[in-house]
Amino acid sequence: MTDRAACLATDAADPLAPTRDEFILPEGVIYLDGNSLGALPSRVPAAIEATVRSDWGDGLIRSWTTADWIGKPHAVGRRIARLIGAGETEVVVCDSTSVNLFKLLVAALRLKPARRVILSEAGNFPTDLYIAEGMQRLFPECEIRLVEAGDIAAALDRETAIVMLTQVNFRTGAVHDMAAINLAARAAGALSLWDLSHSVGALPLDLGGCASDLAVGCTYKYLNGGPGAPAFLFVRSGLQDAIEPALTGWMGHAAPFDFAPDYRPAAGIARNLSGTPPILGMVALEAALELFDGLDMAAVRAKSIALGDLFIDLVERTCAAHGFTLASPREGARRGSHVSFRHDDGYAIMQALIGRDVIGDFRSPDLLRFGFAPLYLRYVDVWDAVRHLVAVMEGREWDRDGHHARAAVT
Amino acid sequence: MTDRAACLATDAADPLAPTRDEFILPEGVIYLDGNSLGALPSRVPAAIEATVRSDWGDGLIRSWTTADWIGKPHAVGRRIARLIGAGETEVVVCDSTSVNLFKLLVAALRLKPARRVILSEAGNFPTDLYIAEGMQRLFPECEIRLVEAGDIAAALDRETAIVMLTQVNFRTGAVHDMAAINLAARAAGALSLWDLSHSVGALPLDLGGCASDLAVGCTYKYLNGGPGAPAFLFVRSGLQDAIEPALTGWMGHAAPFDFAPDYRPAAGIARNLSGTPPILGMVALEAALELFDGLDMAAVRAKSIALGDLFIDLVERTCAAHGFTLASPREGARRGSHVSFRHDDGYAIMQALIGRDVIGDFRSPDLLRFGFAPLYLRYVDVWDAVRHLVAVMEGREWDRDGHHARAAVT
Repeated sequence: MTDRAACLATDAADPLAPTRDEFILPEGVIYLDGNSLGALPSRVPAAIEATVRSDWGDGLIRSWTTADWIGKPHAVGRRIARLIGAGETEVVVCDSTSVNLFKLLVAALRLKPARRVILSEAGNFPTDLYIAEGMQRLFPECEIRLVEAGDIAAALDRETAIVMLTQVNFRTGAVHDMAAINLAARAAGALSLWDLSHSVGALPLDLGGCASDLAVGCTYKYLNGGPGAPAFLFVRSGLQDAIEPALTGWMGHAAPFDFAPDYRPAAGIARNLSGTPPILGMVALEAALELFDGLDMAAVRAKSIALGDLFIDLVERTCAAHGFTLASPREGARRGSHVSFRHDDGYAIMQALIGRDVIGDFRSPDLLRFGFAPLYLRYVDVWDAVRHLVAVMEGREWDRDGHHARAAVT
Repeated sequence: MTDRAACLATDAADPLAPTRDEFILPEGVIYLDGNSLGALPSRVPAAIEATVRSDWGDGLIRSWTTADWIGKPHAVGRRIARLIGAGETEVVVCDSTSVNLFKLLVAALRLKPARRVILSEAGNFPTDLYIAEGMQRLFPECEIRLVEAGDIAAALDRETAIVMLTQVNFRTGAVHDMAAINLAARAAGALSLWDLSHSVGALPLDLGGCASDLAVGCTYKYLNGGPGAPAFLFVRSGLQDAIEPALTGWMGHAAPFDFAPDYRPAAGIARNLSGTPPILGMVALEAALELFDGLDMAAVRAKSIALGDLFIDLVERTCAAHGFTLASPREGARRGSHVSFRHDDGYAIMQALIGRDVIGDFRSPDLLRFGFAPLYLRYVDVWDAVRHLVAVMEGREWDRDGHHARAAVT
């Protein structure tokens, strides 16, 4: 696509174009940060309002059964299961990604008592590595072994208890070959634990088909569940009854409403629950997930790649003189749904873009990240975003107030 | 009060009567289960709507800073701090009560490595005991010692690491003497860990004034934060920097947005955070807590006791022939904000009451629980509820369909 009209024509022919109308998007904003916080699905406000006024306000305590609040971790989990190629009883929605990682790391180390190594990627998302660090205090023998992304399979050995990886790298967007790593892990006698935060809702996933053991993920990125939406947790069915929970709260009890004095884990996936489910967040997420009903994830993936390819092509052709270096895989199949470029003045450039209502984000020291959520982004948005970038660079807008400081963007 | 008119007159003179207008209550329902799920404050729907449509929908990722989402665990924590007699930087809102108990139990056991006993009450809320059970697997030396409520101080010894108690018993409403137990714990060299789930918002609390070490609590009961609202966690300031977190997630990192590879705990209370805060739940709770601004907690407590006293008196006078036994302390000062009666047919009787829109709850094997939330209940509600109970008993309504089965009520 070499002009704006071609982008508009592609949008007109896009089978996913109608899903954009399912979102409430601010006028005039080009939102390239759906990889950090997904946009607001238009059905969400009414779903929350009904839950608040009718179920909470009128139903009060009765809604735990009449509105099946108590079943939400499973009901919403079943919707996510379909998106990740899991069985109906292999996913629950609960807690945060960090807390779920903690639960599954403890469980995995207990399942492999003769092994001591958590193998991961040096560039994994920090909270994943921090949670793993916490394991070293709980399991004194535990060692965290960090290697480069390409060296995972080679680093597996008889000491490896768990391979813990984020499928899509949060900085570069590079995608791990989940099937190959699972195969290698299994051959080495290790368990796999995948963080799907940057993949679910953007990439087709088949946890069952590629023999994954454990997974977690966040729901406020491509699933559009809202800020701080509850996370999810997957345990393959064959492992479920061997899991010994660490966070032995009442929602994971075999009979929580018997109020028995002793803990007895529920059968199956439910034992991974702990406290009372956060209903407002659950309901928002449930409504947001309806957008995926009947959606062809292969088409979602194809559009995601096409948007990223277009962005890379346009940036490299129109900003060649301005010092950007592609930090993401060029090949679409090896890239998640965001594209990153390095630039020494990355922070200031991103601030200038945001000033023009083109919203991406920055990751220190030098990374500009642009996310392409295929459910609501258009090809013309990519075109326009790059035109803004050109204007920022040619006008040296990012340099106007000498604003070079690094700062925090969530 | 010996007739309905006297109750109406007392309501007319009640300084807390206007706060009832701050709630949306279903017509015709007498709600005596605010100890399980608080009613809907009328300001909450608009607060959520604004957060969803404006902050999420329009602000998108920017709202983490512009709407200070990132500061919510602390901002909402400061509101709770005022209600429990804690310092401004001693409380954060996060996760569930169960998860927070886990965090603080691990931390407490690490603070007392030479001791091995968690001392608690046999009738403590089950999730508290379940979470303590989980400690035995993490700390093989750990022993849980359960005694009757009155024997706590006598059971403290040089092995006791932590005294973990729920201040108000979820079954009987009996209140522990927090100051006396804290004093005894400190004298024995043990830490105190209080679960305030059934007290916060109903009883005046002074954690600082009575030398409490650690506390957690739920916010969906007397604080009216909504179903599954985020919980809170208190660490007295002198202990904060000695806490070694178990759930080492990024929100507890000293610089979460540096995305540094190694975990470094934040100073102060923030290190007890773990994952991304659940914003919808936070915002609902924050709006609900505004109702406590300027409220005299001594007046709240006085009304709570008066409502409970009236209920006990009316039940005993009008249902004397029907086999109820008071399970709660008769003395108001020793009772929380709910009253329980035992009855062999308790489950069926409660179902019949609920059929008349008088909503309390049932705890097996034989306990009818009636909660008196002083912010929205009237003396006349107590009168009318007892009239319904009399009608149920005199008409043997509970026996009509032979419905004696035990069942689950949250």
